[in-house]
Amino acid sequence: MQTYDLIQKTRRLEPLSEGEIRHLVQGFTHGEIPDYMMSAWLMAVCCQGLSVEETVALTLAMRDSGDCLDLSSIHAKTIDKHSTGGIGDKTTLLVAPIVAACGGFVPKMSGRGLGFTGGTIDKLESIPNFRTDLSVEQFLDNTKKIGCCVIAQSGNLTPADKKMYALRNLTATVDSIPLICASIMSKKLALGADCILLDVKYGSGAFMKTPEDAETLAKLMVQVGQQAGKSCRAIITDMNAPLGAAVGNALEVEEVILTLRGEIRNALTDLATALAAQMLVMAGKGDIVLCRKMAEQALESGEALEKFRAMIEAQGGDGNVCDDTDLLPKSEVKRTVFASRRGFVTSIQSEEVGLACLGLGAGRTSDRPDIDMGAGVVFHRFVGDFVGQGDPLFTVHGISDALCEAAISRLSAAIEIKDAPAVQIPMIHKIIEA
Amino acid sequence: MQTYDLIQKTRRLEPLSEGEIRHLVQGFTHGEIPDYMMSAWLMAVCCQGLSVEETVALTLAMRDSGDCLDLSSIHAKTIDKHSTGGIGDKTTLLVAPIVAACGGFVPKMSGRGLGFTGGTIDKLESIPNFRTDLSVEQFLDNTKKIGCCVIAQSGNLTPADKKMYALRNLTATVDSIPLICASIMSKKLALGADCILLDVKYGSGAFMKTPEDAETLAKLMVQVGQQAGKSCRAIITDMNAPLGAAVGNALEVEEVILTLRGEIRNALTDLATALAAQMLVMAGKGDIVLCRKMAEQALESGEALEKFRAMIEAQGGDGNVCDDTDLLPKSEVKRTVFASRRGFVTSIQSEEVGLACLGLGAGRTSDRPDIDMGAGVVFHRFVGDFVGQGDPLFTVHGISDALCEAAISRLSAAIEIKDAPAVQIPMIHKIIEA
Repeated sequence: MQTYDLIQKTRRLEPLSEGEIRHLVQGFTHGEIPDYMMSAWLMAVCCQGLSVEETVALTLAMRDSGDCLDLSSIHAKTIDKHSTGGIGDKTTLLVAPIVAACGGFVPKMSGRGLGFTGGTIDKLESIPNFRTDLSVEQFLDNTKKIGCCVIAQSGNLTPADKKMYALRNLTATVDSIPLICASIMSKKLALGADCILLDVKYGSGAFMKTPEDAETLAKLMVQVGQQAGKSCRAIITDMNAPLGAAVGNALEVEEVILTLRGEIRNALTDLATALAAQMLVMAGKGDIVLCRKMAEQALESGEALEKFRAMIEAQGGDGNVCDDTDLLPKSEVKRTVFASRRGFVTSIQSEEVGLACLGLGAGRTSDRPDIDMGAGVVFHRFVGDFVGQGDPLFTVHGISDALCEAAISRLSAAIEIKDAPAVQIPMIHKIIEA
Repeated sequence: MQTYDLIQKTRRLEPLSEGEIRHLVQGFTHGEIPDYMMSAWLMAVCCQGLSVEETVALTLAMRDSGDCLDLSSIHAKTIDKHSTGGIGDKTTLLVAPIVAACGGFVPKMSGRGLGFTGGTIDKLESIPNFRTDLSVEQFLDNTKKIGCCVIAQSGNLTPADKKMYALRNLTATVDSIPLICASIMSKKLALGADCILLDVKYGSGAFMKTPEDAETLAKLMVQVGQQAGKSCRAIITDMNAPLGAAVGNALEVEEVILTLRGEIRNALTDLATALAAQMLVMAGKGDIVLCRKMAEQALESGEALEKFRAMIEAQGGDGNVCDDTDLLPKSEVKRTVFASRRGFVTSIQSEEVGLACLGLGAGRTSDRPDIDMGAGVVFHRFVGDFVGQGDPLFTVHGISDALCEAAISRLSAAIEIKDAPAVQIPMIHKIIEA
C-alpha cells in the first residue's frame, strides 16, 4: 500500500477503505510514515472532508493505536461525559456526584486547561491535597465504591491522537470536523464507558462558532459512537456567555459547592441537571422525566454534595471544603466593578472573559506554565439581568493590582448593557440522539 | 511572521502578500520551515488554489532563491522555448537551428527524461561525443557565434524549485496548475531570456489531459511571464498521438536530421515551423506571415541543417551525423510490424507508446538508470493515414527479442485501425498571446 496513493485519493475525494486508513494511522504512529506525508493528508482532509464511514474507521484506528481501559469489573453500565470546552464550564464537577447519587457510575478521565479554556483536572487540583494521578486499580475501586472518580488521563491511551494533534497544531489543520470528531471519540472509546454524553458548545468562547457547525460535529460524533457499539447522545449548548458565575479554578470549585449546597441556582445548575438526566436515561435508570426528577432531588437532598465530599476524600483531598470554601486557595487582590449605568445585560463575550482570566494567571501560557489557582472572575449579573447604576457587576481576583486592572478593562469592554433586554437564547440548543 | 498563519490563510482562501510568499519560499529553501509545514501549505494550494498575483509572487520568489543567468553579453533579443513534455517531442532540436538560421539567438538549457517522457539532453547525448556540460562562458560564446546552444541545466538555479518538487513528488501535490506554473516559469525566468515561448501539451501522453486544463495553465504562465517583464506566448498542442515518426533518443535525432535535410515532412515539421515563427515574431524579426516564410526557407535551403551541424561541432560532437545517420547508436534487434487489416489509423495512444519505449530501455526507471540510446519505435503510419493489409505499421528497435516482443504487444494494442477515418484534430489547438 502506497501512502502517496492514499493522500492522492483523499485529495481527489475518492474514499479510503478501513484498511487504508489503518495503514495511515499505524504507519504514522510507528514513525514509518513521515510527518510531511501525514500533514499533507491532514490538510487534504481539512479541505476535502471525510465520509462518515472514513471517520468511523479513523476513530477506531486511533482508538486501537494504544491501550484501551477495561471497565468490566464495574458490574453496571458506566457513563462518560465530554464537553468540547468552554469558559466557566465546571459541569463535570456537578454531574459526576449527581449521577453517582442516583446510582450511576461515572469513571472519568479529564484533561488540563488548554489556552483560555479551563480544564477539569486543574480545577480539582485547587482542592488542598486532591490527587488526580491515581492508579487504574484505585480509579476503578473508587468508582465502584462511590459511583464517581475523576482523574487525569494517563497511560498509553491513543498515542496516534497525541502525535496527530501535535502535528495538526503546527500545520493549521486543527479545525476540521472529522479530525476533531476522531480525536475526541478515539479517546472516549479507549476509556471504554458503555454510555457517552457529549456536550458540544458553540459561540464566541467555543471552538465551534455557530450552532450549525456544533450540530454537524455532534451528529458525526453520535454516529461514530453508536457505530462503535456505544450508547451515545449529544447536547448542543450556547457558549456565547460564560457558564455560571465563576471563571477560574478555585472560584469554580466554590461555585460547584455552593450549587451542591443549594445556596445558588443559575444556568449552570440547569445545564448540569439536564446533562445528568440524559446520562441516567442512557444508563437505563428511567425515562427523561423521571431521571430529571432524580437529578433534581439528588441536588436538593444534599446527596450529591455528600458524593462530592466522598469523592474528594477518596482522592486524598480535604472534604471540609464542602463546608468551608475558605479552605480553597484565594488570590490576594480582589476588586469589584460596579455598573456605570442602569439597563439590561445583553451580552458577556465569553472568549474575552477567558482571555482576561488567562491574563490574571488562571490558565497556562507558553511563558507561564504555572496556574494561580485563586485567580479569576465572579459575575454578579448574567445576560438578561437588570442592573441599576452602581450595582456590582463582577469581582476580579488576582495576584496584583496591575494584573487586576488589565483584566478589569478587558472585562468591562466585554459586557454590554442596554436600555432594553436582548432576546434570550436558550442554553440548550438541541439534543442529538441519533 | 508566523508560518502557521500563512498556511491557515491559504486554507481559508485568504490571499497571501508578496512578502508572505517570499517568507515561505525562503524559509523552506534555507531549512527554517520544516517539510511538514511546507507539505501542508502545498496541499492547501492544491485544494484551494492561488490567485494570479500570488502565483506571480511565488514564481519570482522561487526564481530569486538561487542564481540567475546574465545573458546581457548577447547583444540581441534572446529567445527561450519550453515544452511541458510529450512523447516523441524533439521540437527543440529543430527549432533552435531554424531560429538561429533566421538570425535569432536561442541559449537553451534543457532537462533529462522523466518517467516515460523523453528529455532533450538525453537525445543530444546520443550524438557521439556531444557535450551538454559546457561552462556558462562557453554556452554564451557558442550562442553568440552560432545562434543556438543547448546544454543541461547546471549551477544553483532555483534551488527552491528542486526542494519543493522533491516534496511535491512524495506528497501527491504535483498536479496543481499554480504550482506547475511557478515551477516552470521560475526556471525560465532564472535562465533570463527576453522572450519565452511555451508549448503546452494536452492528451493521453501529456501532463494536462484536456485542452481546457492546458489552456488554463498556458494563460497563467503567459500572465506570469509578462508580469515579470518578458515577452511571452504559448501554443497549446495535441499530444494524444506521438509527435512525428520516431520515439527514442537516437531515433529521434535521426528524424530531426532527415527533417532538416528535407527528406521527410510530417506533423513534427509543421509544429517546429510554427514554433520557430512565433519565436521570431517575439524577437522582432517581422510579422507572423513573414516569420513563417523565413522559418520554412531556413529548412528548405539547408541553412538550418548547417546550424545544427555547427552547434553539434561547437559542443564537441561529430557533425558528420548530419550526412550519415548510421554514426548514431543503433539497437541490435529491429522488428517491423505489419497491418493485419486494411483501414484508417484512428488513434495511437501516446502514453502507451511512451511506456512501451520505457520498457525497451529508451528511458530511465528506478531500477535501470542507464538509457539504451538506440532503443525505441519508428511509426510508418500516422493518425488519419490509410493502411492496406500487410503494410508496415511500425518498427521496434531494442536490445533483445524479449524486450521487442513485449513492446510490440503493447504498441499493437495502442494503435486503432477502423474502416472509416476519425475526425482529425488539428495539432495546434490555440495560440495564447496574452
